[in-house]
Amino acid sequence: MLVLFTDFGAFGPYVGQMKGVLYRLDPAIPVIDLVADAPRDPRAAAYLLAAYAQDFPPPAVFLCVVDPGVGGERAACALRIDGRWFVGPDNGLFNVVAMRGRDVEWWDITWRPQRLSATFQGRDLFAPVAGGIAAGRPPPGQPCDARSRIDRTWPEDEARVLYVDHFGNAITGISAARAPGGDARLLVHGRALARARRYGDVAAGEAFWYENANGLVEIAVNGGRAAETLGLHCGDAAWWQE
Amino acid sequence: MLVLFTDFGAFGPYVGQMKGVLYRLDPAIPVIDLVADAPRDPRAAAYLLAAYAQDFPPPAVFLCVVDPGVGGERAACALRIDGRWFVGPDNGLFNVVAMRGRDVEWWDITWRPQRLSATFQGRDLFAPVAGGIAAGRPPPGQPCDARSRIDRTWPEDEARVLYVDHFGNAITGISAARAPGGDARLLVHGRALARARRYGDVAAGEAFWYENANGLVEIAVNGGRAAETLGLHCGDAAWWQE
Amino acid sequence: MLVLFTDFGAFGPYVGQMKGVLYRLDPAIPVIDLVADAPRDPRAAAYLLAAYAQDFPPPAVFLCVVDPGVGGERAACALRIDGRWFVGPDNGLFNVVAMRGRDVEWWDITWRPQRLSATFQGRDLFAPVAGGIAAGRPPPGQPCDARSRIDRTWPEDEARVLYVDHFGNAITGISAARAPGGDARLLVHGRALARARRYGDVAAGEAFWYENANGLVEIAVNGGRAAETLGLHCGDAAWWQE
Repeated sequence: MLVLFTDFGAFGPYVGQMKGVLYRLDPAIPVIDLVADAPRDPRAAAYLLAAYAQDFPPPAVFLCVVDPGVGGERAACALRIDGRWFVGPDNGLFNVVAMRGRDVEWWDITWRPQRLSATFQGRDLFAPVAGGIAAGRPPPGQPCDARSRIDRTWPEDEARVLYVDHFGNAITGISAARAPGGDARLLVHGRALARARRYGDVAAGEAFWYENANGLVEIAVNGGRAAETLGLHCGDAAWWQE
Repeated sequence: MLVLFTDFGAFGPYVGQMKGVLYRLDPAIPVIDLVADAPRDPRAAAYLLAAYAQDFPPPAVFLCVVDPGVGGERAACALRIDGRWFVGPDNGLFNVVAMRGRDVEWWDITWRPQRLSATFQGRDLFAPVAGGIAAGRPPPGQPCDARSRIDRTWPEDEARVLYVDHFGNAITGISAARAPGGDARLLVHGRALARARRYGDVAAGEAFWYENANGLVEIAVNGGRAAETLGLHCGDAAWWQE
Repeated sequence: MLVLFTDFGAFGPYVGQMKGVLYRLDPAIPVIDLVADAPRDPRAAAYLLAAYAQDFPPPAVFLCVVDPGVGGERAACALRIDGRWFVGPDNGLFNVVAMRGRDVEWWDITWRPQRLSATFQGRDLFAPVAGGIAAGRPPPGQPCDARSRIDRTWPEDEARVLYVDHFGNAITGISAARAPGGDARLLVHGRALARARRYGDVAAGEAFWYENANGLVEIAVNGGRAAETLGLHCGDAAWWQE
């Protein structure tokens, strides 16, 4: 199974062009659209990817493109982490899945296609590499020492909003399992939000935080849109009240 | 064929997570995205679903999630209506297809998965149940008396805007076949709209109503966006001029 | 492979209804979503289609619906151009691919389905025709003289913005290969933009033009959204500075 995680948008031509490449490589590879509006910041996207990749067991192959430096000096990489594969730009996007992995292998992708656009390496470089791996071929590159590539200075929790979903809920990079106590309050924009288990546990129009279905702290408003109500945007700080 | 009808959005991770579950259950089930931006109101969504489900003949399985009360007391259900299946929350979402069905069977879903998030039962509960049915298994629950579950007090027509589409057209819950005469005028926001058969039958910029391709009364502006021009939103009243 | 190029939107029911038709015709046809938010102007869409169709080699079948005159007098057509097929309304949408083709065959689609809605011929007419062609059947219509149908007065380059993508980049209908010199400046809204090869080659916040991955002149802002920064919309004029 090949899983797409990009910031390309669901309407336009970029995801479809990648799917065309994948289909021509091997019509039998099933492709699943996971995220098409990842944050353009590779670090925020890295925490989001780590939370949502959990739902896809080995031997899933993740084709991930959040690549504001496309065409620049950043390298291309493929990782095998506990049986799952990740292919994309080497810009921090895989640092969280790698930090949390037990068995991590890392390849620098040195192969280059005949046609390599400066601005759409998702189509020209990452899709062929990911498709080849999904079809059972080894990564076309150089194995390297994963330990030297993983930046372990990144915290376990990312204390900010990573993503605003279709319901206006704000997903943070904070693991709910590490909340300091069952009734911990979450500070965001000067407000201290209480925890609830689900929408119906608070009054209509009230804001709260809860552990979402992938283990992250998520901010919602019962019957409303938290991002608009609270003025939340990707990147806004959120952390526990002392 | 498994058809998705949700309010999850087409960009984010929720539809993809459900597809991952379905794929692992049975890679051979074809999945079709029908609607990813259904109205969050289960009753409005129920009328929309009834109109758009017509295009998918038996043995289609509809996995439907419009579930503002997720995690609360509402039950989960599966229905077989004239050979097609519907799986989702028991919150009115299936009342219109059931009202209009001839042969309706109803199951309370009593099975629960090991992992059941309070806020994403589409992934944890409804997707496995729908996938199992698509794979030929019986609903994991208790058959019950469908007649006692169908609320026949709902009208045949829902006199309001259900959905604003990508063109800015406003789809109502009114069946065009029940229009009171061929030249009936539709009242909306104090305006009385005349009927036309198609865009080109009215002047550029003019608003009108027409019978859409699924039999519903739809409000449009030739060469424009009716929702913006007329200030229409989901839930706005629309009904025939006396 | 059947490729969808429409202005139907990725959220709503129209693409899914077409996929339902295609699936029932032949479950084995792979369907790829290329564009769901094409410009509603068939001429702008024609230049966009010509650029993005390049990525799908024969025997791809393009099911294309940008059809503001749906239900009116315009005909339906199928073209075979150098081994690839195009099916949709005969309103100029295929004029650019036909102008650029070497071996062009043209059919007027004379077949009509039993159910033919006045406003959704994508589902009722074009999808069955395209699906039939993808399944190996001949176009259900009348071959005609392609030379008499192609309007060769259209320019090679379309001097305006065709599309604003998910990143806020503005894609024009101008071929970068025909730029008048390597340092040609692009005039748009009274500003003269310099060329760069990629985002990182200009300062943060700076606007520039570049050759995109499909050969078109595209306007971007490093780290920003060009459409908002420069106030660009589809249809806005863009051309080389003298």
